[in-house]
Amino acid sequence: MSYLIGFDADDTLWHNETIFARVHERYRALLASHHDAATVDRTLLATERRNLELYGYGVKAYTLSAIETAIELTSGKISAAEIRQLIQLGQEMLAHPVELLDGVTETLASLAGNHRLIVITKGDLRDQERKLEKSGLKSHFHAVEVVSEKDEGTYAAVLRRHGVAPERFLMVGNSVKSDILPVLALGGAGVHVPYHLQWELDHAEAPPAAAGRFFPVEHIRAVPSIVTQWMAARR
Amino acid sequence: MSYLIGFDADDTLWHNETIFARVHERYRALLASHHDAATVDRTLLATERRNLELYGYGVKAYTLSAIETAIELTSGKISAAEIRQLIQLGQEMLAHPVELLDGVTETLASLAGNHRLIVITKGDLRDQERKLEKSGLKSHFHAVEVVSEKDEGTYAAVLRRHGVAPERFLMVGNSVKSDILPVLALGGAGVHVPYHLQWELDHAEAPPAAAGRFFPVEHIRAVPSIVTQWMAARR
Repeated sequence: MSYLIGFDADDTLWHNETIFARVHERYRALLASHHDAATVDRTLLATERRNLELYGYGVKAYTLSAIETAIELTSGKISAAEIRQLIQLGQEMLAHPVELLDGVTETLASLAGNHRLIVITKGDLRDQERKLEKSGLKSHFHAVEVVSEKDEGTYAAVLRRHGVAPERFLMVGNSVKSDILPVLALGGAGVHVPYHLQWELDHAEAPPAAAGRFFPVEHIRAVPSIVTQWMAARR
Repeated sequence: MSYLIGFDADDTLWHNETIFARVHERYRALLASHHDAATVDRTLLATERRNLELYGYGVKAYTLSAIETAIELTSGKISAAEIRQLIQLGQEMLAHPVELLDGVTETLASLAGNHRLIVITKGDLRDQERKLEKSGLKSHFHAVEVVSEKDEGTYAAVLRRHGVAPERFLMVGNSVKSDILPVLALGGAGVHVPYHLQWELDHAEAPPAAAGRFFPVEHIRAVPSIVTQWMAARR
């Protein structure tokens, strides 16, 4: 009879893409004398896509792909000092303070008393653990699952580990592709809370109709009433 | 009454430091016109130590620290083409075939029938998962725990998650610092199987005497009889 509520972390609990976007502006500026912004964006994205299988997600992967792309786009003319700047940008991202999204603290505090909450996030293991520590939210969560990919197999393994049937699992996140579609496919429920920016590699088309299991909302503050409604319908 | 046997992965199940050592020879050669090997080694280790908190363990962390060190040691004179080589070296390490250590397959096969085995390893999440897939050993393990640090807190959390008291846990690994000392401190048992190379940052002095709980052996093939002896003493 036990329910489980999962939360994505980056861009669901705290800002992430905005930090990447600020860094990306500085990356474009560094390469502006060589290429226009569109070429820089397209080439970096192609490098990230090519390296995804090998590197996985996170800041270290981004930094390595950014260096590789900068060398390619300047035909090797980029200086070591400029590459040092890229390493520095990566380190600044890793050391960046955690900026919670509006409403997160109250929403989690109100849910944690009555429900079992977990974090399910991809990215660098240590970086995600550090962000959760810095966030002050850790005490609300029963467990933290840092995974290398958010697909059906991963969610199924997490649910097995926590002894929860997919029908009793509800996932909250900003990515339709990573947080919603695989969970709906397993038979679980998804609450989509959009963030104003999205990484191209995390993009998906709109999800299929899943009556009573898919809840698009505007704000995380809507989650507690969705949870109540969803549970009531399952009793 | 349930027992749990944990195995470290790198340099316990498969070769890892030998691959790093081969890459490191090429790294020294790249910088040989600037500095002697001892200076290269010392400076890279200092960079890795400084970045450990931010980067954690693994190949991506190594690659970024190697690039940062190369820029520092050449006063920025290293070329983009040479930095491209360092990125390439990192990618080769990630794509490297898994080379099992002698006796691992038979030892795990003989233990898995009667005992619950798990892997506890640090490093890049995706890289460790990929190596386990490639190893052909995955079916022997009940679970795989990729952790960001191997200290008492981490082991305690893993044991709680698996519902096992520390007194019923035995860890097998090549690192006294990461695989043995924290487990002994919790009240568990450790089997130390040395590897012929060890990363400086994983070094520890010899463990304290822990009669009946610390077993230094020469080869992983000795583990099944140690397990039998340890369990018999606990009944």
